[in-house]
Amino acid sequence: MAASTSSSRTAGAGAQTVADLGEFGMIAAISETIRGVREPGEHVLVGPGDDAAVLRVRQGHVVVSTDLLVEDRHFRRDWAEAYDVGRRAAAQNLSDINAMGGTATSLTVGLAVPPETPVAWVRDLARGIAEEAALVGADVVGGDLTRGDAIVVAVTVLGACRQAPVLRDGARPGDVVALAGRQGWSAAGLAVLGRGFRSPRAVVEAYRRPEPPYGAGPEAAQAGATAMIDVSDGLLADLGHVARASGVAVDVDPGAFTVPEPLQAVGAALGADPLSFVLTGGEDHGLLACFETADAVPDGWLRIGTVTAGEGVTVAGEPYDGVPGHTHF
Amino acid sequence: MAASTSSSRTAGAGAQTVADLGEFGMIAAISETIRGVREPGEHVLVGPGDDAAVLRVRQGHVVVSTDLLVEDRHFRRDWAEAYDVGRRAAAQNLSDINAMGGTATSLTVGLAVPPETPVAWVRDLARGIAEEAALVGADVVGGDLTRGDAIVVAVTVLGACRQAPVLRDGARPGDVVALAGRQGWSAAGLAVLGRGFRSPRAVVEAYRRPEPPYGAGPEAAQAGATAMIDVSDGLLADLGHVARASGVAVDVDPGAFTVPEPLQAVGAALGADPLSFVLTGGEDHGLLACFETADAVPDGWLRIGTVTAGEGVTVAGEPYDGVPGHTHF
Repeated sequence: MAASTSSSRTAGAGAQTVADLGEFGMIAAISETIRGVREPGEHVLVGPGDDAAVLRVRQGHVVVSTDLLVEDRHFRRDWAEAYDVGRRAAAQNLSDINAMGGTATSLTVGLAVPPETPVAWVRDLARGIAEEAALVGADVVGGDLTRGDAIVVAVTVLGACRQAPVLRDGARPGDVVALAGRQGWSAAGLAVLGRGFRSPRAVVEAYRRPEPPYGAGPEAAQAGATAMIDVSDGLLADLGHVARASGVAVDVDPGAFTVPEPLQAVGAALGADPLSFVLTGGEDHGLLACFETADAVPDGWLRIGTVTAGEGVTVAGEPYDGVPGHTHF
Repeated sequence: MAASTSSSRTAGAGAQTVADLGEFGMIAAISETIRGVREPGEHVLVGPGDDAAVLRVRQGHVVVSTDLLVEDRHFRRDWAEAYDVGRRAAAQNLSDINAMGGTATSLTVGLAVPPETPVAWVRDLARGIAEEAALVGADVVGGDLTRGDAIVVAVTVLGACRQAPVLRDGARPGDVVALAGRQGWSAAGLAVLGRGFRSPRAVVEAYRRPEPPYGAGPEAAQAGATAMIDVSDGLLADLGHVARASGVAVDVDPGAFTVPEPLQAVGAALGADPLSFVLTGGEDHGLLACFETADAVPDGWLRIGTVTAGEGVTVAGEPYDGVPGHTHF
């Protein structure tokens, strides 16, 4: 077994590693894990194991998105189990399809891992990805496995839209801005993990395993949403993307939010304004959408602001006094 | 500028880095580079910049494949320019679609890079990917950019088949095995680079920039190929995949190959049998296909063997005395 400085990074005594099993053995193990989650849908004509997967599509659109998760940037093996890393990797990608008003059908997964990685870690990751995908009826149809110094998980997701996809650039002055799903929980969870805490449990769990409001995207599209985006950089930052793409301004009403109790507890413990988690947190993968009228907003969505002429994003009419979201460099 | 121990890994004095430009500036620069290569095809309804790309598909199949390239495993920045790494990353993926009998239409690219990476390196990589894709009329439609300690390029390619995709499992005893494209050149190039040489130039160039026989895949499908695979692990190793999937044996006739002069030169210089590059080399991304009769083999393909009952791959009836190809662990 390879030398180790961190027990969470290597197999326990006697545990099988990726190097033990080899490339083709690992691929077989991963395929078995994925098949154990669900029978592939009828749209999968050829799954993993050939040069490419083959999917049946109906006339129309295919929606496609890709995201990378890099160890120690997007996840830490001591902060989340492999299964949860898988759930999160899939959720983040499935959410992009949700944000177009579509439903995911198929995923491919590229995986770079160090040879001393436990086989069980990789299988748990694969199971997490496949189980999150199964929530929306999507299948893992292919992938690539290679050696790397750090773990990298590259997920690409394909989906379908029943109606025209909802883009970021359709917001118009007078539109109502609404939010579906939780907001700020993942950021609060990350904040406590970053300080070495493991509670409140609810926010730590929210960080480890986001629960995107699958179905809300197609619902908003059906309801005539003019623009839509998922919250991955931060609520204000992502509204900024919509404002820029649409050539409009967005004003957020901070009074629209009831800050949940666990976020208040984290704010009090860390000396932070709990509303900042709501306004700047990313990675809960809620949806932000604009609608022409308040009546068009589907049930379960929270009205949080309005679109006006101009540019930029304001909070109660004022520029936000803080960092609106996360960037990678 | 970040501290540096290797001039080939960081920008020269004053050169702009990814950290200087930031995530959104980099994405804009990459998008501009890609748009400079070609106008997106009509199948691209929404390109990069939204939560997902939207592609127009006709009724039928979508073929999808994904591959990772990890720095210092699949490429070295001192062995190949960024542009060539991009060409190779795209070629490797486009080849998987070719091997199904399809034609690629769209690619997504996930990219992890250290912050001190020169902007010019990333732009050259993107240009290489987009120009290789343009050879078959495919477009880069989306991607993800993030920070990583080593460069990882994750490419996913989507394609279409005019007829039923050709899988690995359809070879039958009596079939003729044929090869399209160069074979062994890339392996010979890698061998000389590994010894610190830069010549013969032809094989080094072949390693840096493979030239898959695009079009040969759909041609073979049209001609009724019973099984097909691209050579990426090594000729004998990939025939082994076909033999296993089809439940047959394959015998290769070594006399079918004329070993090209540059490979003979490399063999002589390194004290290696030049035929070993042909039989075990991968990454030229030629195609191996099986046909029911010799008459069915399209012009330009080289007949190299036969399918028989049994299992495994032999050379002139004997087990091959060496490593048949490359594995990642």
